[in-house]
Amino acid sequence: MKITREAIEQAEKIIKPYIHQTPVLTNKSINELTGIDFYFKCENFQKIGAFKIRGGMNATLSLNAAQLKNGIATHSSGNHAQALAYAAKTLGIKAYIVMPKSSPQVKVDAVKGYGAEVIICEANQAAREAALNKVVAETGAEFIHPYDDYRVITGQATCVKEFIEEVPALDVVITPVGGGGLLSGTCLGAHFFKPGLQVYAGEPEGAADAVLSIKSGKVEKAPFINTIADGLMTTLSEQTLAIIKEYVTDILLVTDEEIIAALKLVYERMKIIVEPSCVVPFAAAIKNAHLFKGKKVGIILSGGNVDLTKFGTWFPAKN
Amino acid sequence: MKITREAIEQAEKIIKPYIHQTPVLTNKSINELTGIDFYFKCENFQKIGAFKIRGGMNATLSLNAAQLKNGIATHSSGNHAQALAYAAKTLGIKAYIVMPKSSPQVKVDAVKGYGAEVIICEANQAAREAALNKVVAETGAEFIHPYDDYRVITGQATCVKEFIEEVPALDVVITPVGGGGLLSGTCLGAHFFKPGLQVYAGEPEGAADAVLSIKSGKVEKAPFINTIADGLMTTLSEQTLAIIKEYVTDILLVTDEEIIAALKLVYERMKIIVEPSCVVPFAAAIKNAHLFKGKKVGIILSGGNVDLTKFGTWFPAKN
Repeated sequence: MKITREAIEQAEKIIKPYIHQTPVLTNKSINELTGIDFYFKCENFQKIGAFKIRGGMNATLSLNAAQLKNGIATHSSGNHAQALAYAAKTLGIKAYIVMPKSSPQVKVDAVKGYGAEVIICEANQAAREAALNKVVAETGAEFIHPYDDYRVITGQATCVKEFIEEVPALDVVITPVGGGGLLSGTCLGAHFFKPGLQVYAGEPEGAADAVLSIKSGKVEKAPFINTIADGLMTTLSEQTLAIIKEYVTDILLVTDEEIIAALKLVYERMKIIVEPSCVVPFAAAIKNAHLFKGKKVGIILSGGNVDLTKFGTWFPAKN
Repeated sequence: MKITREAIEQAEKIIKPYIHQTPVLTNKSINELTGIDFYFKCENFQKIGAFKIRGGMNATLSLNAAQLKNGIATHSSGNHAQALAYAAKTLGIKAYIVMPKSSPQVKVDAVKGYGAEVIICEANQAAREAALNKVVAETGAEFIHPYDDYRVITGQATCVKEFIEEVPALDVVITPVGGGGLLSGTCLGAHFFKPGLQVYAGEPEGAADAVLSIKSGKVEKAPFINTIADGLMTTLSEQTLAIIKEYVTDILLVTDEEIIAALKLVYERMKIIVEPSCVVPFAAAIKNAHLFKGKKVGIILSGGNVDLTKFGTWFPAKN
């Protein structure tokens, strides 16, 4: 299904009653420090604490009554799980969420808190898919993939549309990239609503599939997975890669140390809580400042769902 | 010097160009959880990361040219130090800040970063006062006390004035109490700009001087000092006590465990960074929910300057 300008406008209209129009923050001391004119679109303040509600809500609202009847289902250990659970609660339907047993208890609790049914499985892709297929077969629920779904991508595209309306003079927008739902949506939103707006992505070195996939032109696996950016460990799909390949300016890699330094800046200067995955584009901009000096650079701060007990490892106490 | 309605209006006018009008946030999930209609005045987003800039800036701007000539001075390990350093930088004058050698390096660096001269002394009251007297004698700088100063109290009063204008229907406002600058200012602001608005304060059990002072009617010392709310360890002055005694509804004590639980709620649900001292009023409201159910309760979130390396002790990793 080809995603159009009208589809994004329609998505914005139908999800509007259910989501927040998130604020755009600026920070003088960060701009002085970096020489870059940053604008931060704060999706950490979004419903469920992340942009994922945009795609999850749009996909759910796009279902017809027959499809809705048996509820919705997905496998996710992260923000997409919460997005579908919240969408289902809002619409009064059932949600079945397959979560690997490695999922943090706080996330399992959040999903259950929205009234979704959680199915715990082994922590590997095959087990997740098997458990999902089983629940779909038993319940007739509609599967909504976290990113390999044009309705989800269309929903994520509403974020950059809002951002452009809030800061019309933006020169660049940078998102994180995991499975590519937000990045492909942002590419399309920029293309339709502000042609000429450059789209970059930040990716962790420890989950570097997108940068390889763009180079080879086909979906590649990351050489290794090892990063604190736990929302970005997934791999692009054919669908997201096709869009990203066409529109993205570049994908920039950062190390975990650079992610933590960016996290520290955001916590200390902006006084807001964001996830490590969420500051990857900010870290990429700082690292590649030569590309962005003097430009108006929009960062989509994608989410703020952190496990507070991890803070001690990110910012260890001095001896 | 008696603080008048006009003095607060004048303070608001003269500090306005130098400070932020901070946002008021609400949070549906916290309201549902507590049954209280909370409004959070986010002074953690204020210049220098805390409300202290209001008083520090007002006091500095109240000096005449002869007084300004030799700069300003104070002793403080906390946000007042940064407030004066920032005020001095803004006005192009000198600031001399006496800081105990126990001060976190991050705070010393912040004060130096604004161009202030830092004088390190032993970590006790006598040493701080001796060092301050010495620097004032040598330089002729004007001493601005962190809270025992009517110009500082008048500046702090502008916060509740703004808050009332932003949320006219407020029933209650709660602040933290340390030396009583913010609380006495809030008492006066409420009295002049919304008579009938109840003013409460939250105080840590491990620095419980204000609750005793209100009871006895004279300035009392805390029985012991041991709390993570490091901004609230100071003792009321005659001046702040006199105002608080007249206007405050009550002072409510909380434990460090209750402070950490409130901190967790704010971090997880609101996605903003605040200091432990800053959530003491919120913790007090949750603990005494019977007083506040169904009311519109304003919390002044006083500041967000945290040492990130402390996170690990507040939210220890699970085994």
